[in-house]
Amino acid sequence: MDRIPILRMGQFLLVTIQVDLYDRLALDLEADLVKMVSKTGAKGILIDISAVSIVDSFMGRIIGNIGVMSKLLDAETVVVGMQPAVAITLVELGLPLKGVYTALNVERGMDLLKSKIQVIDDEEIDPDDDDSDDITE
Amino acid sequence: MDRIPILRMGQFLLVTIQVDLYDRLALDLEADLVKMVSKTGAKGILIDISAVSIVDSFMGRIIGNIGVMSKLLDAETVVVGMQPAVAITLVELGLPLKGVYTALNVERGMDLLKSKIQVIDDEEIDPDDDDSDDITE
Repeated sequence: MDRIPILRMGQFLLVTIQVDLYDRLALDLEADLVKMVSKTGAKGILIDISAVSIVDSFMGRIIGNIGVMSKLLDAETVVVGMQPAVAITLVELGLPLKGVYTALNVERGMDLLKSKIQVIDDEEIDPDDDDSDDITE
Repeated sequence: MDRIPILRMGQFLLVTIQVDLYDRLALDLEADLVKMVSKTGAKGILIDISAVSIVDSFMGRIIGNIGVMSKLLDAETVVVGMQPAVAITLVELGLPLKGVYTALNVERGMDLLKSKIQVIDDEEIDPDDDDSDDITE
């Protein structure tokens, strides 16, 4: 397989990792995802790793990188479906996936992304609203 | 890899096929999908085959089977992201994927599923509505 497919679903991009992310494939995914966020203006990325049973420091770093890069392009990243063994390995490797949110499954991840975008939208609206008397209404 | 992950998204199930569906894996996917439809009461299945570049008669038959089986469990199946070469091969193999809808990408497939479910819901409501004078209102 040359590329991991990235599925566009409205404001979000969905990636299902089913194979071992060897170096070339992982770097391609990173580049493809960032390009896709830029092209589509996506507000969130969902990465499903439920089929991943083994994780190494390289893959952990790539997922972290994707999170930070997308954040720079104003998109949030949520990793879903992590197996318990993978969570243990990530912590033991000292890779707590900074800049990346996690959720138990795709549905919860989607809800999390929606709430994050909601919160961010609200924060963006707030500064215009200088009327501090609002609270008494 | 032992299993192709099936993602639940609300009323739908999403499967991304990224690897060659050799016999055991394809049969497992078929069984898993039907079980999952029965368990979750899903109304639709989306199968993304954008990463599939080679298709054989076995895989064509499995996809057709999934469509027919899900239909029996009251779920529609939409295959999305088919590469042109795969479409050519399927027709040449004499496998027009009966019982399966197709769409260009996941978003359109999702819209198609929603419209199908809508139509079916409407049809289910219609028989109760025997008041034929409605049309004059």
